[in-house]
Amino acid sequence: MIVNHIINGVESPNFETHSTSPIYNPATGEHIRDVVLADTATREHAIASAEAALPAWRATGMAKRSHIMFKLREIITSRSEELARIISEEHGKTLADAHGEITRGLENVEFCAGLTHHMKGEYLQQAAHGIDVHQSRQPLGVVACITPFNFPAMVPLWMITTAIAAGNTVILKPSEKDPSAANWIAAAFRDAGLPDGVLNVLHGDQHTVEYLLETPRVKAISFVGSTPVAKAIYSSASAAGKRVQALGGAKNHMVVMPDADLDAAADAAISAGFGSAGERCMAISVVVAVGNIADELVEKIVQRAHQITLGVYDDPKTDMGPVITRQSLERITTFVAEAEKHGATVVVDGRDWDRTHLNPNGYFIGPSIIDHVSAGMPCYDEEIFGPVLCIARVDNYAQALEMINSNPYANGTAIFTRDGRTAREFEVGIEVGMVGINVPIPVPIGAFSFGGWKNSLYGDTHMYGPESFHFYTRRKVVTTRWPLPDESQINLGFPTN
Amino acid sequence: MIVNHIINGVESPNFETHSTSPIYNPATGEHIRDVVLADTATREHAIASAEAALPAWRATGMAKRSHIMFKLREIITSRSEELARIISEEHGKTLADAHGEITRGLENVEFCAGLTHHMKGEYLQQAAHGIDVHQSRQPLGVVACITPFNFPAMVPLWMITTAIAAGNTVILKPSEKDPSAANWIAAAFRDAGLPDGVLNVLHGDQHTVEYLLETPRVKAISFVGSTPVAKAIYSSASAAGKRVQALGGAKNHMVVMPDADLDAAADAAISAGFGSAGERCMAISVVVAVGNIADELVEKIVQRAHQITLGVYDDPKTDMGPVITRQSLERITTFVAEAEKHGATVVVDGRDWDRTHLNPNGYFIGPSIIDHVSAGMPCYDEEIFGPVLCIARVDNYAQALEMINSNPYANGTAIFTRDGRTAREFEVGIEVGMVGINVPIPVPIGAFSFGGWKNSLYGDTHMYGPESFHFYTRRKVVTTRWPLPDESQINLGFPTN
Amino acid sequence: MIVNHIINGVESPNFETHSTSPIYNPATGEHIRDVVLADTATREHAIASAEAALPAWRATGMAKRSHIMFKLREIITSRSEELARIISEEHGKTLADAHGEITRGLENVEFCAGLTHHMKGEYLQQAAHGIDVHQSRQPLGVVACITPFNFPAMVPLWMITTAIAAGNTVILKPSEKDPSAANWIAAAFRDAGLPDGVLNVLHGDQHTVEYLLETPRVKAISFVGSTPVAKAIYSSASAAGKRVQALGGAKNHMVVMPDADLDAAADAAISAGFGSAGERCMAISVVVAVGNIADELVEKIVQRAHQITLGVYDDPKTDMGPVITRQSLERITTFVAEAEKHGATVVVDGRDWDRTHLNPNGYFIGPSIIDHVSAGMPCYDEEIFGPVLCIARVDNYAQALEMINSNPYANGTAIFTRDGRTAREFEVGIEVGMVGINVPIPVPIGAFSFGGWKNSLYGDTHMYGPESFHFYTRRKVVTTRWPLPDESQINLGFPTN
Amino acid sequence: MIVNHIINGVESPNFETHSTSPIYNPATGEHIRDVVLADTATREHAIASAEAALPAWRATGMAKRSHIMFKLREIITSRSEELARIISEEHGKTLADAHGEITRGLENVEFCAGLTHHMKGEYLQQAAHGIDVHQSRQPLGVVACITPFNFPAMVPLWMITTAIAAGNTVILKPSEKDPSAANWIAAAFRDAGLPDGVLNVLHGDQHTVEYLLETPRVKAISFVGSTPVAKAIYSSASAAGKRVQALGGAKNHMVVMPDADLDAAADAAISAGFGSAGERCMAISVVVAVGNIADELVEKIVQRAHQITLGVYDDPKTDMGPVITRQSLERITTFVAEAEKHGATVVVDGRDWDRTHLNPNGYFIGPSIIDHVSAGMPCYDEEIFGPVLCIARVDNYAQALEMINSNPYANGTAIFTRDGRTAREFEVGIEVGMVGINVPIPVPIGAFSFGGWKNSLYGDTHMYGPESFHFYTRRKVVTTRWPLPDESQINLGFPTN
Repeated sequence: MIVNHIINGVESPNFETHSTSPIYNPATGEHIRDVVLADTATREHAIASAEAALPAWRATGMAKRSHIMFKLREIITSRSEELARIISEEHGKTLADAHGEITRGLENVEFCAGLTHHMKGEYLQQAAHGIDVHQSRQPLGVVACITPFNFPAMVPLWMITTAIAAGNTVILKPSEKDPSAANWIAAAFRDAGLPDGVLNVLHGDQHTVEYLLETPRVKAISFVGSTPVAKAIYSSASAAGKRVQALGGAKNHMVVMPDADLDAAADAAISAGFGSAGERCMAISVVVAVGNIADELVEKIVQRAHQITLGVYDDPKTDMGPVITRQSLERITTFVAEAEKHGATVVVDGRDWDRTHLNPNGYFIGPSIIDHVSAGMPCYDEEIFGPVLCIARVDNYAQALEMINSNPYANGTAIFTRDGRTAREFEVGIEVGMVGINVPIPVPIGAFSFGGWKNSLYGDTHMYGPESFHFYTRRKVVTTRWPLPDESQINLGFPTN
Repeated sequence: MIVNHIINGVESPNFETHSTSPIYNPATGEHIRDVVLADTATREHAIASAEAALPAWRATGMAKRSHIMFKLREIITSRSEELARIISEEHGKTLADAHGEITRGLENVEFCAGLTHHMKGEYLQQAAHGIDVHQSRQPLGVVACITPFNFPAMVPLWMITTAIAAGNTVILKPSEKDPSAANWIAAAFRDAGLPDGVLNVLHGDQHTVEYLLETPRVKAISFVGSTPVAKAIYSSASAAGKRVQALGGAKNHMVVMPDADLDAAADAAISAGFGSAGERCMAISVVVAVGNIADELVEKIVQRAHQITLGVYDDPKTDMGPVITRQSLERITTFVAEAEKHGATVVVDGRDWDRTHLNPNGYFIGPSIIDHVSAGMPCYDEEIFGPVLCIARVDNYAQALEMINSNPYANGTAIFTRDGRTAREFEVGIEVGMVGINVPIPVPIGAFSFGGWKNSLYGDTHMYGPESFHFYTRRKVVTTRWPLPDESQINLGFPTN
Repeated sequence: MIVNHIINGVESPNFETHSTSPIYNPATGEHIRDVVLADTATREHAIASAEAALPAWRATGMAKRSHIMFKLREIITSRSEELARIISEEHGKTLADAHGEITRGLENVEFCAGLTHHMKGEYLQQAAHGIDVHQSRQPLGVVACITPFNFPAMVPLWMITTAIAAGNTVILKPSEKDPSAANWIAAAFRDAGLPDGVLNVLHGDQHTVEYLLETPRVKAISFVGSTPVAKAIYSSASAAGKRVQALGGAKNHMVVMPDADLDAAADAAISAGFGSAGERCMAISVVVAVGNIADELVEKIVQRAHQITLGVYDDPKTDMGPVITRQSLERITTFVAEAEKHGATVVVDGRDWDRTHLNPNGYFIGPSIIDHVSAGMPCYDEEIFGPVLCIARVDNYAQALEMINSNPYANGTAIFTRDGRTAREFEVGIEVGMVGINVPIPVPIGAFSFGGWKNSLYGDTHMYGPESFHFYTRRKVVTTRWPLPDESQINLGFPTN
Repeated sequence: MIVNHIINGVESPNFETHSTSPIYNPATGEHIRDVVLADTATREHAIASAEAALPAWRATGMAKRSHIMFKLREIITSRSEELARIISEEHGKTLADAHGEITRGLENVEFCAGLTHHMKGEYLQQAAHGIDVHQSRQPLGVVACITPFNFPAMVPLWMITTAIAAGNTVILKPSEKDPSAANWIAAAFRDAGLPDGVLNVLHGDQHTVEYLLETPRVKAISFVGSTPVAKAIYSSASAAGKRVQALGGAKNHMVVMPDADLDAAADAAISAGFGSAGERCMAISVVVAVGNIADELVEKIVQRAHQITLGVYDDPKTDMGPVITRQSLERITTFVAEAEKHGATVVVDGRDWDRTHLNPNGYFIGPSIIDHVSAGMPCYDEEIFGPVLCIARVDNYAQALEMINSNPYANGTAIFTRDGRTAREFEVGIEVGMVGINVPIPVPIGAFSFGGWKNSLYGDTHMYGPESFHFYTRRKVVTTRWPLPDESQINLGFPTN
């Protein structure tokens, strides 16, 4: 079976070539279907389709747009099991986790349902004598959203929904590893009443991405992926004069203070470290144990790690599924295999996990825990994006802060403490965009926006929520006078009202 | 006399070299002083100074910061004549025009005085059970503002004031053609109580700009200048991973509808076309006469143009001063000289102007009006940035709209009409960032933000006012729980609140 | 059949008495059912039920509350035909009009679905050294909403939805003339997942209203009705120390300028004057013809009026239904009958209308148009609330403005013109809360709020939309420090941060 | 000397009568001057003056209004010593405390300086096809501000400044006990450029208050005073159909948790309990000691109380001045004298204080501390408004919460703790409008608004800051269409866009 493009409301194969990329079920290693990779003519067709849909869409009344968002939420909510299965089959995550992804993706649909409020500008009567000023939010035109494999439904919903709500038309380029969710979403939008051509799904590889970055017909780029690619995309799209937001990788630290509830902290470390096999940009990858609680904390985490059951997404006993590809499996395995060589201690080894009930061709590896980790070790310095939790031990809070603020990534972080002052100091002092106080994965709810700092986000605007309307609109300011004929005079000075 | 840097609160010569650039009085052509051009060591010193001032400044309470802004306004207001003379002497604009510039620059100081309001984030209690979320605005670090010659006080005040209000420390790199206003402003900030090192003025040329774009120690770039340079700066700063807003050139059209009051329209065309010798990015450079009123309108504009008196900035009879440099004078002259060759009609020729009372070495040229202009002619296609007003004639409103929307620049525009429907159609249909309805130079008041579209602004955030606080801050979102010990459990699913 | 209360999620008869009030079908005059009138014990039970539900409801997470609003919209949208029939049968308006009412009522449900945004407060870090400030929105407790007969679904949805969204629990006291829609809405809320006791429908008469105004257990009152009652309610509820918003009557003028499109103006006058038989507080009741277009305008309006078909709500040929009660019919008839005596001219007499196809016991009267009306005549001075359109003739715009600004009512108004300056002058000069420019019934969309001025609204906060969240919450401001032990000192001066 | 009215910019005696009220220096008991009490003709003159100034003032451009606010701040800042002496002489508080009052009053001037932002409404283009909606803030007309003796400069600045900024004209009725500060402020406004008649100071007693409440020429009432008067004013002004905010008394509790820093808590109790002799509506009047720290805490507070020096305002050694009147002194003395009779323990008796260096006719009483206080005792149940600090002892946090939430007053409260969870529980659970976490007097900074709950504020809108612009404006919503002639049709259904 071929996963085709969705262009102008219809499933569309390539125009010229038959280039495809295989899709695997990570739990079995089976090649289950193929996704088409766009050729040039198809890319142009997709953009032309978005351009053609633009004038009518941007002129569509706000109330009508809003009603499509309400309907979309209704559709996705009532058919979420379908979408969850599509996600899980191609990605490997458990159904429960896929449902969680959908719920969080829906938060931005819910936020966009309020577009009659969020699209408002400001108005000031009598700014100066007889002069009124107002400002409105206008769409940019055709925009492209390039989304990663790890959240094949949530990240598209975080981007395209606002882009559409704001009156733009969209090219969605999902990951070629699990592209089917994007097509399902496009169908849901269509069922909700979105006119054809407003949302187009264009499958492709790096060449399609480059095309989207370069063509002047695409006005803005939203991207989520690894930091090196995010930085390259930011640079290329900017060189083409576009506005761009490019979200990159992460290395999220969770500080556990001596006064913390260690059981709760251990629970949180397990949930946030191994959920979705660690393939989340908000996963906790380093626990920073402060002071003399380290041994006890590690013991509690290790105990819990051993309870985790590897398995297939639709087995209710499964806690954790496979990783996304064979290459990823090998890369993760290497980090664990070489950790001791670099001076760390592997206290739980994911390679030892019981996989007898699993397909040996699946990309499974159990949870690993590496203790005594520090900067300079590959397992600390690099984003592993797998079920590997590092433990760093520091003497005091100041060292914990220093460690995190020295890291080039700055997506998320958390602290576990009971002390009000410590929490406030952490909140103020930490140079990270999303912070949890006793919350291990502080993904903001949909009414706030998502974004890291430093190498975790390039651009000045975060994703989804209020900032997203900033990104996907350009503001127009209108200054108005309705003078009487005799009020006019020449004045070459700069107008000062 | 040498105009030196202001670094860490003190006037600072270069460390290593003695490179300078001459400053001329445009009204006389005299070389009146020199500005130092930063060498590498001095650049690093300036940045080090800004870095050293950062921790204390960003920790300074909002009330205290706000009081500095109030004091700054008081100082600039009470000493504006001093600043106006500095501007006019190096730039050539009339004192009245310089005062206008100061007044508009102060609008952003006034906006920033309200920083206790503008720096607020949002707070939501009980987002989910026991979970609160809030968001705050945090400074970026050291930021650089690179400003143009045409508004040597206003544009710096539009940038640096917000950058400082938001808790950043700043490198201001003003134009080397009229750099003294920047130093005056730095002194005013200091007198207002700004700690040393928070605002540093670094003089220099293109090499200094490149340095600021590239060094990772500078976190953000604000720029105003010509479109080619703006685009290059956007590209370079983005390649270095920074956030950047780069405002470029303009070609602002003023549409005159058949129902307009032609006297008022002619007054406006003169004021907006020739004020500051046309050296404003919001100057009107093309009047678009719609329908059969063109002859009458042109006649009225021509009559008024002949009344304009060229002169020196402090002569109260002066309407219009010289242009900024000899090269600029020559470039402008060429546009007028060659206009007829390209098919246009020069109905007023600025070269014919009476200059007998003026220093023959001054860079003076009178107002020029070129009629029957259309796309493809250099005087239409290029930004002249001088006292040259083009007239285009179209048959109807649709052609006027088409002409403006086809232009790559999209900074400002205006329409003159009495009809409500026409005004609304123009407001909705025109693809330009700042629009005037019967207002020829629609620079938004300081409580709104300034920004063009298309090739007139690269980035997603406008200058001064509310958007400026978006640009100069990064948002931090904090999700908080204070659980009881027994509330914890492991959940590897994606958190859905 | 008895229409009972809905208390704590169940249909509830009275506790002690069997007092009821009859409900009639206005199209037939038939007594179709009865509504129970609350006795004291039942009132107390309703309030106790709301009080009991309060702690859990106000602690409910925002996301959960929001999801109930989304579900409610889904239910009302999919079952709107049911609700429309209930409205029309008891009120008499056409089904199309009832659907219109539902759609507009849903706008506030849609706005409230965004409560995770609208319930946000503000947060400021480091207001002063070490001091943070934030503000949150908290519910008031048990609130009462008292709604009128003319929009038995829309006005309840405009009030209770926000009250509930904000975390309050509610007593809804609908009109006893058409109370069934309120019960339907309560059931819809319940189906949407609202916990029992959060919304209680308490039927009753004036005594129940007085009880709600006086009891200290109800914290706030929202009311829509006639001006004398609104004023009395404002006074009584305030005397009991409560917050209250009380919306009263209207006399809405529509100015037609000489430059207006008279056909469009006549269409608008008919639609806005006779829709829902004039029983809307935003109906146009006076057309103000400016200058010499009056005769032509009146002729066009009269022509159109004669096309209107009186009829029963479910007859597709019906344009206009009956009025609400026999008393109302008689009162309206009197205004028309006595108009000529006061010096006006009845140019269309609703008493002459063809009613042969109608039940003679129905409360039908056709459209009436009274020309040459002026202040001092009862048909001008009083709110008729029926299908009677007055025409006033003035010489110029200034007289039109003066007439409207002299009127004690100030709910809505409209102007028809093509001139931008006239529109702006009207917008600025008119002392009325809701203004239409070429829009005859300017009910704001749900993202703005609804409210008149002067005798049309008592209180400082408008209904639905953003202001409604102001009314139904009280703000709590928290100032926080987490000092070190040695930071403390005594200071008896007033704290200045 | 007579303190006269300021009407229409000039000092004005009464028209008809010569009624006056004496002003005393509380530190000496001397009758130092008299204040005129308005007669009817003078009241009408003041209102007529405000009415006459209204049209021009509300039409004044926002920028111009804003510049007056900036200038006002400059004047008050540079001449604050003058104002402080006026305050202290008539009120008795120390100069340092008077300066604190001025600084906090200025915060609202600073907030209002940003009126070009705060007066903005909202704008939505294309709400439906061809329909735009916008909303603006309009002044109410003539408004009255009635202010208390305890902050004779701050409270006026909290009210009148916003009222004026919003375009209203104002009658300020200050306390007759210390009326001179109001006159000084009116002069400062005038020097700042405020046109005559915009701000009028009308001195008077209860009869003048009643007049202002009743006359329909005054559109809104702001009041701060005791709860019984606040409630009466809320009732009367509402009965006259006005909008009103009436702030009443307080009984502010400060909870000290067992984990608190007791030295810091004792410092805070002293500062907040005895500053301004306890005559602040945000003073702490009850310390609630939780658990077994009570004895130690009381000991620390008592020790500190004994250090307090009674004295005259301009003696730098003075910590605390006299109370406002002889009657007040007697009333306070009685609370202390009878406390033991009701079962409490007087651990520090203010009657014993050293007053040998003071004028025996001054209204001096030292700090008193009453331990073992509980509900039912007059010193707990009533607002003492003097230097009397009560101590209540409870076993646990739940009892502390219950005690505060049972109190009819709900202005301010504070908790001292180091625990994040306790702070969050208190913030969420406490039914009080202004809350301090380790901050004893949590008066919100000027960018937030001030307001208590329950019997501490009647109305739905708080004082100063953002909510103040809500109170002093009424919103106007404009819905606009500019249709083509052939777009019109009749539709009697309710418009649904």
